Amino acid sequence: MRQSARSQIDPFIVMDVMESARAAEEAGRDIVHMEVGQPGTPAPLGARRALTDAMGQGSLGYTVALGLPELRARIAQLYADWYGIEVDPARIVVTAGASGAFVLAFTALFEAGDKVALGLPGYPSYRQILRAMSLDPVDICTAEANRYQPVPSDLPDDIAGLIVASPANPSGTMLDKAAMAALADAAQARGAALISDEIYHGIEYERRAVSALEVTDDVYVVNSFSKYFSMTGWRIGWMVVPPDHVRTVERLAQNMFICPPHASQVAALAALDCKDELEANLAVYAENRRLMLEGLPKAGFDRIAPPDGAFYVYADVSHLTDDSLAFAEEILEEADVSVTPGLDFDPERGGTMLRFSYARSTEDIAEGLRRLESFMKSR
Amino acid sequence: MRQSARSQIDPFIVMDVMESARAAEEAGRDIVHMEVGQPGTPAPLGARRALTDAMGQGSLGYTVALGLPELRARIAQLYADWYGIEVDPARIVVTAGASGAFVLAFTALFEAGDKVALGLPGYPSYRQILRAMSLDPVDICTAEANRYQPVPSDLPDDIAGLIVASPANPSGTMLDKAAMAALADAAQARGAALISDEIYHGIEYERRAVSALEVTDDVYVVNSFSKYFSMTGWRIGWMVVPPDHVRTVERLAQNMFICPPHASQVAALAALDCKDELEANLAVYAENRRLMLEGLPKAGFDRIAPPDGAFYVYADVSHLTDDSLAFAEEILEEADVSVTPGLDFDPERGGTMLRFSYARSTEDIAEGLRRLESFMKSR
Repeated sequence: MRQSARSQIDPFIVMDVMESARAAEEAGRDIVHMEVGQPGTPAPLGARRALTDAMGQGSLGYTVALGLPELRARIAQLYADWYGIEVDPARIVVTAGASGAFVLAFTALFEAGDKVALGLPGYPSYRQILRAMSLDPVDICTAEANRYQPVPSDLPDDIAGLIVASPANPSGTMLDKAAMAALADAAQARGAALISDEIYHGIEYERRAVSALEVTDDVYVVNSFSKYFSMTGWRIGWMVVPPDHVRTVERLAQNMFICPPHASQVAALAALDCKDELEANLAVYAENRRLMLEGLPKAGFDRIAPPDGAFYVYADVSHLTDDSLAFAEEILEEADVSVTPGLDFDPERGGTMLRFSYARSTEDIAEGLRRLESFMKSR
Repeated sequence: MRQSARSQIDPFIVMDVMESARAAEEAGRDIVHMEVGQPGTPAPLGARRALTDAMGQGSLGYTVALGLPELRARIAQLYADWYGIEVDPARIVVTAGASGAFVLAFTALFEAGDKVALGLPGYPSYRQILRAMSLDPVDICTAEANRYQPVPSDLPDDIAGLIVASPANPSGTMLDKAAMAALADAAQARGAALISDEIYHGIEYERRAVSALEVTDDVYVVNSFSKYFSMTGWRIGWMVVPPDHVRTVERLAQNMFICPPHASQVAALAALDCKDELEANLAVYAENRRLMLEGLPKAGFDRIAPPDGAFYVYADVSHLTDDSLAFAEEILEEADVSVTPGLDFDPERGGTMLRFSYARSTEDIAEGLRRLESFMKSR
């Protein structure tokens, strides 16, 4: 049977590493997972309790497409709490994770064939979703001097859209207010829609992450309950869209999704009030980050920019290899530590980069660092 | 900010009726809901218990993109139980509801600009999702004589795909094995991919629904836990795809969805073993259907084809109105019964059709029929 050309997107290279790690564990080896992009913690206890209660009470049928009104209102409150800005709950669209948000955003904003710019290194699925939707991703090779973030002079003239991410995956670097404003202006000057991926907000260490909504309302902001709220598998997130885009996105959501998962909406609403547990998770990431910034250089991975947020360190290993996939397999084989080669994030330069995640327990991170140091010494 | 042309899809006309019903209830009136396309029952008790247990035990993080292996295996077993056919679990793709399945299927199969045929009357979102994905829906005006199902002679030559639904929404009619095989052959002769929507399977009354997999493996079969398994809001469903399409769909799912909601997968797996409760739900639909087939003609809605499956009756009201939206509003206003005008399902002929749903409790259905009869007598 026919298959479309647009469906022939790239495989994730990290999947090979994860499969090797799985096989190693099946063979009885103990692996420290520094490849995974998700918290080891479950959804907050309050969120799980709220869902258990709800399951005893109602039928959890379809909700309206934009999400439970009380959840949209509570998310609006988060913008007041986190950034001191007022956001009309009517502009908030609850989505099936950030993934669902990107599908809606790309459909609402772009025609087949449109060019959309994104920075490399970056989250690989931006590029693949764009291609699957008949859009044309335009890679921006960001400079290390710009901390792997795009700057206005990087932007081509003929783009219909620009995706930015702060804190970024894999680098963990953030855009400050001036940098965000400059990119928003540059996008607007080109008639390009700005999409700001803010899914790691809340996980920041030395200064607060800036929301694109602090500098413009002419933006699609994408966020998620996956990371700070520790709810990856629940597939629940949100977008803030310009007021005159709400009806368009609502109609798309009604047809393409019907509604976000109701159970996840109930859990997410309660998670917004679980600050103590979430801040305790954050304290773990902060300690893990401290260990990483101390331990990675000691092990020989010293070409890193201190990450402002998220739970990743992106390391330049060009002095050690030009084949990060083989190097990752070697580290797994010799050190029993699973890490991500840079190739998924940057097909052009990722052969000399590795991403280390510190989303798991501090015990795991400390053990992983010990193993990495001993591996590098014996190499 | 820019909006794409492809995002400017049609609004649901039923939303106006639902909003009027909501306003009527807020004003203190008691409304019988015959407009809703979902069970009034919750997910089976065993499903909810399984999730409560799982929430106490694990973190419910991401699953692999194709879904939990044990869920895929258990769904494969369903094909043995329901149809006596063997389906390799590797061909089963767990999705974020049938909606997620359609997004994946349309992306995997079709290029921007491709023509995809579908029968009218039919589920309105097929058309809207196709348009949002830069595809070109080709309407087939099915004949009442064919029980509102397409037949091979209806199919244009230049289509890239054909969507069939059995039992269909809104008509409830089914394709028998010969009719399904004829459509599969006709699609193949045109080089068109066949997509079979089987989300109402399990809800059938006088004979078993036929799966397209009983006549061909060259098909995308879409199913869902929403209807028979009574889990609409959980957004969980599945597809069966040809063996050589699995890798393509897996890559798309990894990037566009990451995974289906983990909590919903856990609940769905348990729901598959809740046969007693689900068959009890089915017995309610069967009794409701009996009441409808007796009561609707008595009330004056006598131009109906007995529905083979699902929980809808699609009635020709051309002797009563040529404005089904106004008529639905009148029924709501005068009889306190909310019904769906045919316009969403068939923009061309739906002005003279109404859909009555009997998915709720028997008490509700009986009361709704009493009101309809008294309304029609006084009209």
